[in-house]
Amino acid sequence: MNDSFLRDFRVMSTFGATDGGGVERQAASLADGENRAWFTGWLVDNGFTVKVDAIGNIFGLLEIVPGAPYVVIGSHLDSQPLAGRFDGAYGVLAGAHAARAAAASIVAGVVPARFNLAVVDWFNEEGSRFKPSMMGSAVFTGMLPVDKALSTTDPTGTTVAEALDGIDGRGSFGGLDVAAYLEIHVEQGRELEDTGTTIGLVATTWMAHKLEVVVTGEQSHTGAARMVDRRDALYGAAELIVAVRRLIDGFEPEQLHTAVSEMYLDPNSPVAIAREVRMLVDIRSPERGILETAVERLRAHMTEIEATARVEIEVRGLVEWSSGPFLEEGLVLAAAEAERLGYSHRRSATVAGHDATNMKEVVPTVMLFVPSVDGISHNEREFTSDDDMLAGLKVLTAVLTRVASGALTATDADAVALSSDARA
Amino acid sequence: MNDSFLRDFRVMSTFGATDGGGVERQAASLADGENRAWFTGWLVDNGFTVKVDAIGNIFGLLEIVPGAPYVVIGSHLDSQPLAGRFDGAYGVLAGAHAARAAAASIVAGVVPARFNLAVVDWFNEEGSRFKPSMMGSAVFTGMLPVDKALSTTDPTGTTVAEALDGIDGRGSFGGLDVAAYLEIHVEQGRELEDTGTTIGLVATTWMAHKLEVVVTGEQSHTGAARMVDRRDALYGAAELIVAVRRLIDGFEPEQLHTAVSEMYLDPNSPVAIAREVRMLVDIRSPERGILETAVERLRAHMTEIEATARVEIEVRGLVEWSSGPFLEEGLVLAAAEAERLGYSHRRSATVAGHDATNMKEVVPTVMLFVPSVDGISHNEREFTSDDDMLAGLKVLTAVLTRVASGALTATDADAVALSSDARA
Repeated sequence: MNDSFLRDFRVMSTFGATDGGGVERQAASLADGENRAWFTGWLVDNGFTVKVDAIGNIFGLLEIVPGAPYVVIGSHLDSQPLAGRFDGAYGVLAGAHAARAAAASIVAGVVPARFNLAVVDWFNEEGSRFKPSMMGSAVFTGMLPVDKALSTTDPTGTTVAEALDGIDGRGSFGGLDVAAYLEIHVEQGRELEDTGTTIGLVATTWMAHKLEVVVTGEQSHTGAARMVDRRDALYGAAELIVAVRRLIDGFEPEQLHTAVSEMYLDPNSPVAIAREVRMLVDIRSPERGILETAVERLRAHMTEIEATARVEIEVRGLVEWSSGPFLEEGLVLAAAEAERLGYSHRRSATVAGHDATNMKEVVPTVMLFVPSVDGISHNEREFTSDDDMLAGLKVLTAVLTRVASGALTATDADAVALSSDARA
Repeated sequence: MNDSFLRDFRVMSTFGATDGGGVERQAASLADGENRAWFTGWLVDNGFTVKVDAIGNIFGLLEIVPGAPYVVIGSHLDSQPLAGRFDGAYGVLAGAHAARAAAASIVAGVVPARFNLAVVDWFNEEGSRFKPSMMGSAVFTGMLPVDKALSTTDPTGTTVAEALDGIDGRGSFGGLDVAAYLEIHVEQGRELEDTGTTIGLVATTWMAHKLEVVVTGEQSHTGAARMVDRRDALYGAAELIVAVRRLIDGFEPEQLHTAVSEMYLDPNSPVAIAREVRMLVDIRSPERGILETAVERLRAHMTEIEATARVEIEVRGLVEWSSGPFLEEGLVLAAAEAERLGYSHRRSATVAGHDATNMKEVVPTVMLFVPSVDGISHNEREFTSDDDMLAGLKVLTAVLTRVASGALTATDADAVALSSDARA
């Protein structure tokens, strides 16, 4: 299992490979399409039945208990621009290998089974090309209407539907009865590495507020307009970005994460002051109180900046991710399996969103982390060692086998019917 | 002359017309091409011989003194995005009408002539699509090599050569012996309006430094990366934009103009911190000492921001515009003509660059302004009244007639051979 996993992972890392040792496979790009096609072939070669749903999620089914609900395991194959090769892809491939191994044990009669197994590649987890992130799992769990997702456009105006059709990426799969969900991912932080731990048991998710902010000024001549007459949207935006960053000074270290990383200017001319700037403000905290205080302070800064820069600042959209615990029984189960296999483990919090964050709202969900060197993420230099990837795969396989035997879900009736098909 | 000028101006304002009452005719765009085609037709219909040179400057020639050098008059037909309909277009059309009227007087024997007349539409004065601005006149005066200009790309990678070919906009005109240059333009400031003056006599140009700045950070996860580990290029850029704006606080009001209006981010993803931001910093002053002090202070801020934001800030390119007086004899001549025609006048400084700023370095040059309501410029709401446009046209025609009679240039030998053709 070790050799074949590492070999497959190296093959997968060639799709959309970048000069800097990473990958670039934004959702429904050519490289994402190539990787999906290769993964689909792998599933077929390994006895999975492949189904694709209306939002482009790829499912590989192993029906080993005829008619029973499914334990779903997976992550996402899409990436950020100039990204690392582990984020998402590791979890999908580890899920596929774990499902293949668990099914073999079950079919051989080594362990009993209550549920079928399905590996999934969730469409557009990253959200770099099409917002929001975690799109495929949001549609599948009913949090985002499929029509709204399909009509979302990228910055060039291409819709999700058009982009998916361009890689032959849409299907008509009607969905599954889901008994539980499992996901493994690289940590994208340093806690495991700093504490010398191999397996992270994801216990909580940070909360996040994502504010779509529009700063409106007035277009004028960059050189000729009098300074007192200017209503410079980019200057207002810059004051706001600085205010967003300085919010953290009012709290304990690492209790608040803030950033602006996406921004569009009109007209973006060297000689015409920006009339409008659109940007996304990302504020996260493990504590609701801290997050709400931070957002309140930011709104006060916005009012000040409106006066200073003579602009209008409007919050047009707000996406909130609630924090919330993962299932306690899942944490206990995963800790026991890690312990049994001899790997160090500790409870982790995830700052980043994951498809598991959506799935845990509807079905029993277990999420595992393996270490990221220096916590580097969304960067070509992201790195997780082969040993850590294989340790994660072993624990994941063990947990999957237990969950497929009914460790977290008592009866078929506890399964939840999920689908990306609005007609289902 | 009044009716036909206003009628032609209204027709011209339909090319690339915007819903907001302005125009959008960026250099070598479809709308620029349509406007150029219409203007070329106007020139032919009015007896001009049309020539286009290697960088897309359009010349309309009236050879009334066989073999003599030319007095050139004009401005530019291209515009900023969502721009006013007066900036540039007024000067080209006023130049054409002035040349037609002056030639008629000369041919009728009312006034003597020493020189021929040429009206010009300079290519890409605005520089919003292709940098640098004032490209056509820079090539024609030998300040910018034609090959370098033709290979310049817009943000989508299209070259000037490709864009010009797309509107059939390049020719092989070998150039002219130029005796003098005249240009009229809307003020893009408020001084004429505030002082109730009809004609501005441009006496000086502000100096400008345009710094191409690259801020380099490191791409990482917008949510997950620890704040202390971040090297956020957009945060660094925002601190720099704020510092650029606050530079003005150290000087007397309106002695320093500063702005950033163009910026590109990589990767510009909602979930990946920017690894690189490229922007143009525009700093202008009438006084060399103020400008140099401001740039020095800005460089000190850059060093501070490099430490605060953990980024690198590099100034990759620097364009300097020198200030400098316009020809004193030209100012005296234009003042006398305005006076004779009964229009109020005063000496003006131009903060914006103009093709006249390039031309005045090589030939005797006169530049006139007419008022801009509220000084609004590079904006659809830019406005100059019909009366002011017609007053400008009258004074321009009078000055052109005098200059064509040899008022500023003593002999043919004082003319300068200029060309956009590198082989000429």
